[in-house]
Amino acid sequence: MKHMIFGESHGPAIGVVLEGVKPGLVIDMDFITGEMDRRKPGQNDLSTPRKEADSVKILSGVFEGKATGTPLCGIIENSDTRSRDYEPMKVLARPGHADYSGYIRYQGYNDHRGSGHFSGRITAPLVFAGAVAKLVLKESGVTVMARIREIAGIEDIPSRLTEEDPSILEGVAGKGFPVIDDTRGELMKEAIRKAKDEHDSVGGIIECVISGIPAGKGTPGRDSVESVLSLNMFAVPAVKGIEFGTGFDLARMRGSKANDPFQYRDGMVMTTTNNNGGINGGITNGMPVVFSVVIKPTSSIGLPQKTMNMRTLEDSDIAIEGRHDPCIVHRAVPVIEAAAALAICEVLGL
Amino acid sequence: MKHMIFGESHGPAIGVVLEGVKPGLVIDMDFITGEMDRRKPGQNDLSTPRKEADSVKILSGVFEGKATGTPLCGIIENSDTRSRDYEPMKVLARPGHADYSGYIRYQGYNDHRGSGHFSGRITAPLVFAGAVAKLVLKESGVTVMARIREIAGIEDIPSRLTEEDPSILEGVAGKGFPVIDDTRGELMKEAIRKAKDEHDSVGGIIECVISGIPAGKGTPGRDSVESVLSLNMFAVPAVKGIEFGTGFDLARMRGSKANDPFQYRDGMVMTTTNNNGGINGGITNGMPVVFSVVIKPTSSIGLPQKTMNMRTLEDSDIAIEGRHDPCIVHRAVPVIEAAAALAICEVLGL
Amino acid sequence: MKHMIFGESHGPAIGVVLEGVKPGLVIDMDFITGEMDRRKPGQNDLSTPRKEADSVKILSGVFEGKATGTPLCGIIENSDTRSRDYEPMKVLARPGHADYSGYIRYQGYNDHRGSGHFSGRITAPLVFAGAVAKLVLKESGVTVMARIREIAGIEDIPSRLTEEDPSILEGVAGKGFPVIDDTRGELMKEAIRKAKDEHDSVGGIIECVISGIPAGKGTPGRDSVESVLSLNMFAVPAVKGIEFGTGFDLARMRGSKANDPFQYRDGMVMTTTNNNGGINGGITNGMPVVFSVVIKPTSSIGLPQKTMNMRTLEDSDIAIEGRHDPCIVHRAVPVIEAAAALAICEVLGL
Amino acid sequence: MKHMIFGESHGPAIGVVLEGVKPGLVIDMDFITGEMDRRKPGQNDLSTPRKEADSVKILSGVFEGKATGTPLCGIIENSDTRSRDYEPMKVLARPGHADYSGYIRYQGYNDHRGSGHFSGRITAPLVFAGAVAKLVLKESGVTVMARIREIAGIEDIPSRLTEEDPSILEGVAGKGFPVIDDTRGELMKEAIRKAKDEHDSVGGIIECVISGIPAGKGTPGRDSVESVLSLNMFAVPAVKGIEFGTGFDLARMRGSKANDPFQYRDGMVMTTTNNNGGINGGITNGMPVVFSVVIKPTSSIGLPQKTMNMRTLEDSDIAIEGRHDPCIVHRAVPVIEAAAALAICEVLGL
Repeated sequence: MKHMIFGESHGPAIGVVLEGVKPGLVIDMDFITGEMDRRKPGQNDLSTPRKEADSVKILSGVFEGKATGTPLCGIIENSDTRSRDYEPMKVLARPGHADYSGYIRYQGYNDHRGSGHFSGRITAPLVFAGAVAKLVLKESGVTVMARIREIAGIEDIPSRLTEEDPSILEGVAGKGFPVIDDTRGELMKEAIRKAKDEHDSVGGIIECVISGIPAGKGTPGRDSVESVLSLNMFAVPAVKGIEFGTGFDLARMRGSKANDPFQYRDGMVMTTTNNNGGINGGITNGMPVVFSVVIKPTSSIGLPQKTMNMRTLEDSDIAIEGRHDPCIVHRAVPVIEAAAALAICEVLGL
Repeated sequence: MKHMIFGESHGPAIGVVLEGVKPGLVIDMDFITGEMDRRKPGQNDLSTPRKEADSVKILSGVFEGKATGTPLCGIIENSDTRSRDYEPMKVLARPGHADYSGYIRYQGYNDHRGSGHFSGRITAPLVFAGAVAKLVLKESGVTVMARIREIAGIEDIPSRLTEEDPSILEGVAGKGFPVIDDTRGELMKEAIRKAKDEHDSVGGIIECVISGIPAGKGTPGRDSVESVLSLNMFAVPAVKGIEFGTGFDLARMRGSKANDPFQYRDGMVMTTTNNNGGINGGITNGMPVVFSVVIKPTSSIGLPQKTMNMRTLEDSDIAIEGRHDPCIVHRAVPVIEAAAALAICEVLGL
Repeated sequence: MKHMIFGESHGPAIGVVLEGVKPGLVIDMDFITGEMDRRKPGQNDLSTPRKEADSVKILSGVFEGKATGTPLCGIIENSDTRSRDYEPMKVLARPGHADYSGYIRYQGYNDHRGSGHFSGRITAPLVFAGAVAKLVLKESGVTVMARIREIAGIEDIPSRLTEEDPSILEGVAGKGFPVIDDTRGELMKEAIRKAKDEHDSVGGIIECVISGIPAGKGTPGRDSVESVLSLNMFAVPAVKGIEFGTGFDLARMRGSKANDPFQYRDGMVMTTTNNNGGINGGITNGMPVVFSVVIKPTSSIGLPQKTMNMRTLEDSDIAIEGRHDPCIVHRAVPVIEAAAALAICEVLGL
Repeated sequence: MKHMIFGESHGPAIGVVLEGVKPGLVIDMDFITGEMDRRKPGQNDLSTPRKEADSVKILSGVFEGKATGTPLCGIIENSDTRSRDYEPMKVLARPGHADYSGYIRYQGYNDHRGSGHFSGRITAPLVFAGAVAKLVLKESGVTVMARIREIAGIEDIPSRLTEEDPSILEGVAGKGFPVIDDTRGELMKEAIRKAKDEHDSVGGIIECVISGIPAGKGTPGRDSVESVLSLNMFAVPAVKGIEFGTGFDLARMRGSKANDPFQYRDGMVMTTTNNNGGINGGITNGMPVVFSVVIKPTSSIGLPQKTMNMRTLEDSDIAIEGRHDPCIVHRAVPVIEAAAALAICEVLGL
C-alpha cells in the first residue's frame, strides 16, 4: 500500500490517495471517524480552538462499503479558515517554521496561509490513511498502539516499554490523553496549560508499539524495518528524532546487557529483554516493534521572537497571533500510529 | 546517485554498484584508499585483529581515471576469512545478532559464516561509495564530517555541535580516534580496553555535520532531508536511533528556546541557534545539517550468554569465539559519513 | 513530476495528484479547458453521447493562479452516469474488456459500473495532468503534437513522419479530427460511421512527435527514453503496441538504409533521416522524438458476442447496450499527447 | 526481484546485481551456462567472430549452490578485446549508434571502446539474470519461450502465435536458429549471409510467449503487464518497437473480430482467440502472454557511410572495421526471453 498526501491548510481540501488497498476490505467509517476524532482540533483547552469537522469524503476506491483495490482517494474539506490571521506575517520567517526554507524551496510561490502544505493539518489525511492501514493490519493480527512517553520533562510510568509487557498499552490508546499513569498525565496537562498561559509551548516523546508482527519481515539495508518506519516518521511535521528499543541509552550499555537473549517458551520464540525493539539486522524477530519519536515544542508561540523579513532581509520582531496549540504531542499520538501502520503495511507487503 | 550493495563476509567479494555518478568526476584513488583505511580492521588493539587490505577493484564506470557516468561497480575481495570459527555456532542464535531474524527471513539459506550479508564488513563498499559521493559533493562545496560524541557514557566536549561552530570539526576527522578533546578520547579508549579485557563490548554516539549545503533542498513528506538521511543510517548495522539538531532533548525545551531565530548577517541568512539541525519542514535552511546516531554495543562478546538453538529450539549457552571488535563506534565514523554523503547527493540531485 | 490517477467511471469523482510541479508555473485554465475539450465525449456522432462537462476542480497545489510546487490535486466530478445500463452485464465478461481479468485481480470487489477504474474515462485526469506537463514543457521550448496516422486501414498522408518535417503537424493538433489530409480524414469518418451503423467498432494508429527536445537526455537501460514513454503509453487503455521512428518496418530494412547519418547544418547537429525516432541507445539525439501507438477497436460493441458468465462459468451471449464510442482513436489523440508530455517531463527531470 | 546491470565492452568485467532472489533457489549452473551459450558470440558465420567464454563468476548471494536471498552479483570477465579497432573512430559518430547521443549525455567521458556501456555485450549479464529468473518462474510453472518471427522480410510460419497453440514453440527455443519452420530459417540465414557479403546488415522481429501465467496479475496504469514488459524490452539495445497479441494489425480489425470471447472449457477459463496477447486492462487473463519486438538491423556495417566528426562537427566518411554481426536477431532471442522473464518475476512479485 502506497500513499500520496496533498493539500494546504487554507485551500479547498486536503487529502490522500492510497494505492494497493486490499480488495474487499470493509471500510469501517465508524472506526475511521473515531481515529479522525482522536486527532481533531478544538476539543479542549490543551489544543488550538480551530474547529474542523474533519469528516472524510471518499472519492474513489470504495464500492458498496468495501475497498475495490483500485486507488482510494479520501478528502477532507477545509472549513474554519481565517486567512487574515496570517497575512501580516507573510514576509516574516517564523522561527522553527518552514517559512524560510519553503520560501527558498518553492521560490516564494507556496501557499503561506496557515503554513500551507507544511501545516500540521496535513496529518489529518495521514490519520485517515493510517486508519485504513490499521483495518488491513487488523486482519493479520497486527496492532499499533502509541502513548505519550514524556511531555515537558515529565515522564509517564514506565519510562519505556522495552522491558514491560506491551499489553499494558491496551485501553491507553482509547484515552483522551493517552498515558499509562493518569496522575503523571495530569502533571503533563498542567505543564501544557502553564506554557499556554505564558504564550509558550512544550514538546515531548511518543512511544509506539507494534504487536503481532511475525519474525522474518524486512530486508537488511535501505529496506530495513527501521528505515521504512523512520522514513514515514520524518514525514510527520515536528518529529526530530527516532529511536528503536532502548535507543540512545544503548550508548551507555554493555553488550552483555544490551543483547537480547533468545528463548523458546510456550510455543513461541521470544527474547527476555527487548533492547533491540523487535528488530535485528533490519528484520523483525517476532517481538513487539518498539520505537519512540521526539516531537519538538510547537513552533508557533505568542511570545515575542526575533526574526528576519524574507524580502528585505532586515531584522524584525514577531509575536504570532492566530490559533495554535501549546503542545501537539497528545494530538500527534494517532498521527504516529497512522504513520507506523502505513510503514508496517509496506514491510509486510500488505 | 543510487547505490546497491552486495556481498557476504566470507564470500569471494563484497561490492557496490553506483548509478548516476557525474561524468568526468576524477576518481581520486588516493582519497578513496584513505577513506577505506579509516574503516579498515586490524589497525590497533581497539578493533578486531582480522586483517583485510580492503583495496577496491573497479570493474566498470571509470575510464582513464574519470567516471564515465554509466554504472560504476567496485569490489573488495575477501581474504582473511576463517570460516571454521563460525561453524559451531551455525545453529545458535547469537543474542543481538540477525542470526534468528535472518534465519526466518531467508528460510535458513543465508550464508551464516561471519554473519554473511549482515556482517559489518558490508560497510566497506559503503565507505567506497561514500568516498565517491564525497568527491561529488566537494565540487559543490559540501563537506561531511563526523566525530565520536560519546562512548561508554564518556562524552566528548562539546557534547553537541548545535550551538558550536562546526568548523571545530576540521582536522578531527583526520584523527585515528576522531574526538575533539583527545583527553576525553583517551578515557573512551580505556573504557573500550576495559570492556575488551572483560570479554564485553561498549557502544556510543556519533555526531555528523554537513556543511555548505544550500537552503531550499529537500521536500516535505517522505522525501524530507531527515527521511532520506535516516533511511541511509538505518541501513548501517548497529544504528538504533537518529536525532537531528538537539533531537531528543527538544522534549524538555520550550518553543521560545527551541525555535531558531533567523537573521541576515555578512551576506548570509543564518539562525542564531541550530536546534533544528539545519532543517525546517524537511527542507534545509542553509545552516549546517547536524545529526547524531546511536551505535549499540557490539553484539559479539566473549562472555557466556543464554540463547536458543534455532533447529531444536532448546536453550543453550554460547560464548562467541572468533575475532570481534569490543567497540565499533570509532570504526563506524567514516561509515556514517559515507552513508550521509550518499544521502546528501540524493537530496541535492547529484 | 510524478502523477497518480484515481477514480471510477461512476464514482463521485476521478482525479490525479501531481508531485513536483514547477513552483510559479502559471496554471492556464483556458489552455487546460481546451485540452479537456479535445478529449471530452458527446461532441459529435463519432463518439459516445455521454455528456460530461469535464471541468477540473483544483483542490491543492495552486495559489493565486500559480503552481505552489507542492502536490497538485485536480478532480473531475462524474455527472451523467447511468449505472443501470451496466447492471445486467455485471456477471458477464465482456470480450476485449478487463471484466474477467479485473474480477480475478480484485476478487470481485472492483466497481463494475461503466468499467469502473478500467474506464476510458480515467483518461480525463490524464489529459489534465498532461496539460500541466505541456505548460511546463512549453517553458523549455518542447512541444508535443499527435495526429491520427490510420483508422480502419485508411492511412493519413504521409504515412509516417520519420522522413517529413514534423512542422507539418502545426495546426493539425487544433483540428477536431486531427489528420494532415482532411480528405483522408473524411474517409476515416465514413469508416467509423459505417462501423457504428453496423454496431461494430474500428481501431487505428496515432503518431506523436515531440519537438525541441535537446540531445543527451535519457539513460540507457530501464530508464531509456523508449522505456519511459512506453511505460506511460501502456497505462492508456486500448494501447496494444508502440514503435519508435520507423518501428516495425525496420525489420525489413538494411542497416545502410536504417542508420541515420549525422551532419552539422545551420548551427545544429541533425540526422538526414529519422528512422531511430530521435533516440539512439535510449538517449535523445536532438531530432524530434517520433513514435506511434496502436489503439485497438473499441471493445464495447452492440453486435451479439459469445462470452462467459463469471459466476456460473456458463456460456452466454451478450450484446452491449449503453453508450459507447464506435472508435476512440480521434478522442485518444490528446490522451497520447498527455501521456507523452508527462513522460518527457520525467526524462528531462522537469 | 530487481536487477542492476553494469559494465563496458572493453572494461575488466560486466555484470549484474539481483536483489530479492528467492532464498533456497538452486542456482543450476548447467542451465545458466546453456543460456549464456545461446547468446555467446563467435559460434558460426552468422555472428561476430569475437570469442568470449562468457562464463559467469558469482561473487555473492549464493551459498552451497543455493540462493541466499541476499543480493546476488554475477560478473563476466571481458577477454577478447581489441580496443585498437575502435581508436580511429573515437570522434566519428557512427550512424545508428549511441556515439553522439552518449557523447552529449556523458559529456565525452563515456568509454568509447567497443561502444562501452552501449555495447550489445551488456546483454550477457542480462541473459544471466534472466536465467535466474527462469529458474524462479519454473517453480511456479511459468515458461518463457521466444522465436524468430521474421528476418529481412522473411517470415516464419505461422506468422504469429495469437491464434496458434503456443506449445508449438516447445523444442524451438533449443534450436541454434530458433524458428518453427527450418526451411524458412534457411532462407533467413541466406539473407543474413548475403547482407554480410555486401558489408551490410539486416533486422527482424522476435516473438515471445509466456505460458503458465495465472489470470489476475498486473495492475492497470503504469504497472500494467504491458508497461513492465516494455520497460524491460526497451532496455535491450536495438529494440525499437513492441506489440502485444495482434498488435499493430489491430488497427485494421473490427471490434467484433478483435475481441477475444471468453469460455470455460476443461476446467479452465480461456479465450477462443488471443488478439489481446493474454492481457486485458493491463492484467493477465490466463491466456499465454504473447508479444513481439522489432530488432533493427545492426548499426555497425562495413559499407561506407556519411557521418560527422563530433569534435570538429565536419562532415566525414566512415566504414566500420572491426568485428560485428550482420544480424543480431537470432542472438537476441535468449536476450528477449531473459528480459521477459525478469519482467514477469516483477509482475508476479517473485
